[in-house]
Amino acid sequence: MNNFNFKNPTKIIFGKDTYHKLATEIPENSRILMLYGGGSIKKNGIYENVKKNLSKFHLEEFGGIPPNPEYSVLMDALKVIKEKKIDFLLAVGGGSVIDGTKFLSSAALYDGADPWEILTSKRPTLNAMKFATVLTLPATGSEMNSGAVITRAEFKQKFPMGGAGLFPQFSILNPEVVYSIPERQLANGLADSFTHVLEQYMTYPIDANLQDRFAESIMQSILEVAPKLMKDQKNYKNAANFMWNCTMALNGLIQKGVPNDWAIHAMGHELTALYGIDHARTLAILTESHYRYNLKDKEEKLVQYAERVWGITNGNDEEKAEKAILKTTEFFHSIGIKTKLSEYTSEFKGTAEEIESRFESRGMKGIGERGTLTPQDAKKIVELAY
Amino acid sequence: MNNFNFKNPTKIIFGKDTYHKLATEIPENSRILMLYGGGSIKKNGIYENVKKNLSKFHLEEFGGIPPNPEYSVLMDALKVIKEKKIDFLLAVGGGSVIDGTKFLSSAALYDGADPWEILTSKRPTLNAMKFATVLTLPATGSEMNSGAVITRAEFKQKFPMGGAGLFPQFSILNPEVVYSIPERQLANGLADSFTHVLEQYMTYPIDANLQDRFAESIMQSILEVAPKLMKDQKNYKNAANFMWNCTMALNGLIQKGVPNDWAIHAMGHELTALYGIDHARTLAILTESHYRYNLKDKEEKLVQYAERVWGITNGNDEEKAEKAILKTTEFFHSIGIKTKLSEYTSEFKGTAEEIESRFESRGMKGIGERGTLTPQDAKKIVELAY
Repeated sequence: MNNFNFKNPTKIIFGKDTYHKLATEIPENSRILMLYGGGSIKKNGIYENVKKNLSKFHLEEFGGIPPNPEYSVLMDALKVIKEKKIDFLLAVGGGSVIDGTKFLSSAALYDGADPWEILTSKRPTLNAMKFATVLTLPATGSEMNSGAVITRAEFKQKFPMGGAGLFPQFSILNPEVVYSIPERQLANGLADSFTHVLEQYMTYPIDANLQDRFAESIMQSILEVAPKLMKDQKNYKNAANFMWNCTMALNGLIQKGVPNDWAIHAMGHELTALYGIDHARTLAILTESHYRYNLKDKEEKLVQYAERVWGITNGNDEEKAEKAILKTTEFFHSIGIKTKLSEYTSEFKGTAEEIESRFESRGMKGIGERGTLTPQDAKKIVELAY
Repeated sequence: MNNFNFKNPTKIIFGKDTYHKLATEIPENSRILMLYGGGSIKKNGIYENVKKNLSKFHLEEFGGIPPNPEYSVLMDALKVIKEKKIDFLLAVGGGSVIDGTKFLSSAALYDGADPWEILTSKRPTLNAMKFATVLTLPATGSEMNSGAVITRAEFKQKFPMGGAGLFPQFSILNPEVVYSIPERQLANGLADSFTHVLEQYMTYPIDANLQDRFAESIMQSILEVAPKLMKDQKNYKNAANFMWNCTMALNGLIQKGVPNDWAIHAMGHELTALYGIDHARTLAILTESHYRYNLKDKEEKLVQYAERVWGITNGNDEEKAEKAILKTTEFFHSIGIKTKLSEYTSEFKGTAEEIESRFESRGMKGIGERGTLTPQDAKKIVELAY
């Protein structure tokens, strides 16, 4: 096991009938900016419910944060924060709204010349405006971690950011929000959370027994709830399990003390930036080819995954690993997610070279758990995913 | 799944060569009281190592906190805190030293007439003197939770306490401390952590898939490391897995959203108070009889435990449950822990009646996950454990 630090101070308020806690969890006399996305919260009643519970505060709002939170839109929100002397942010949404709010939380207290530097400098944000979340779309885990990914459309780029200052003060997780999520987003949440676990698990063994078993537990639990959820999303049990799986998949716990991969995300972000493919689906596109390309390097963990998560007992190690890769693809298909780039865009030719060249131009040395995958490797992996 | 709140702000610093972080993690200009137990830390080098890293602070020390931290001893430490104007506590020890430090952290800022009320009032401690821990004995999980148990010898009583103010600021977990722990304490740590998980798991199903799987993961991981650890405690891998298992077994995570039992602890504390039996061993004494007595009530979870943790596939449900109970007892025996009260004291007769009468005199309504076990049930369970 590697040395590690772990601290996650976010308070989770999980369950039905929990929005009233907004009134007591947010510091008195706060001047709040409530941030949300495309307006689905106005259809499912969350908007009214949240506002009702914020009546004692000075409240401003900013809607329209798009999926893959866009820098230029966030800069408009930043103006509101400054003009209205906001001192507390409340994200009501999914990963995109929460990630956008994290950027704003950092930008609001940024003392440099241009908030853009937050994304280019790669310096962690230690000091940020306090914020909380009301999660409306389980998937990214952003409600209980300190990371975010911001898009700048004019550059067709996605930029990760993070830092200990960017944990939400609290997050309200009411599984009832799941009842009205479009099927496509449910599938995205399942695929996204599953791949989050894989990125922190499918590397090489390092004798971290519990981290491995926790990762396997989350994957087993996702596989268990997925068909039930897709069949009956208005079942509270399914909704609650789905929601808690997604949070635990990326709240920092299972990644501690073990090597982490994240190559699928590094390549996947480029597919979203280039073609606007849903984040979760870019991960599903790349998983099979990434693992097959790196099968020898990851064989021990692929075999463990085959045995413990999929119950595969027949065959030699290579066969078990290969079966587990195919099972993973079958899982994506079972929830309606296609796994070939050509199924998402007819313009796929040249994508591999474009990603290679982007990685090269950024001086990327190597990705993956050993930092050894070059831009040329990425090119080959993306090609395998056509 | 039940509604729940979860927040655990303790920072874990895990690994080798980590004591130097004391110098930067403790607030500047702190006046520190370092608390420890019987002096084992002076033999294994931890005492010197910790002190070296505290050289820039004003440092006082208080040794001699006994196993089952004793109220009267802690009151002596409280005098030092007041006289020396201490503002930061550092526990260097196992569960007893850390629990004692939690009481002191609460007592130091207590504004009532008598700190004894902290234990009798059952009010949670929300405001306490900041403290941190250097863990030297993995077992109780106290290094990452907000609970404590304090003993008052003159009353032969143990009192639980807790509250959101009692999370350590940080805890240093260096697995190398495991190398010099006496075998008896290693076995205690394994049994203690295993039973902690059982108390949060062996209740009734509530469709909390991930909580169940996490609990099973910790138990599987303990069972995996136990024989290796007992054979070779100077192996870093074994030590690290043992240590992280113990912490995760009782840091609040797996108990959220599910029913909790804790009847074994309620009865076990009395055995320690009456006979001074090691806490972990009191749990091992009571586990088999508690589960057999409540087999029908707990059958569904006992079967799940049998299948998932012990791989028991033969037999009907009752047989599976019974086999799993026996397997658990075998596990305690395999690490050298006896499971009958009569193996610890020849004075066992009348214990059941004494515990019944203690529970009655405290007006105890009922224990266990349904709150339905009466003092009379406790009497029968303890009798079964003779």
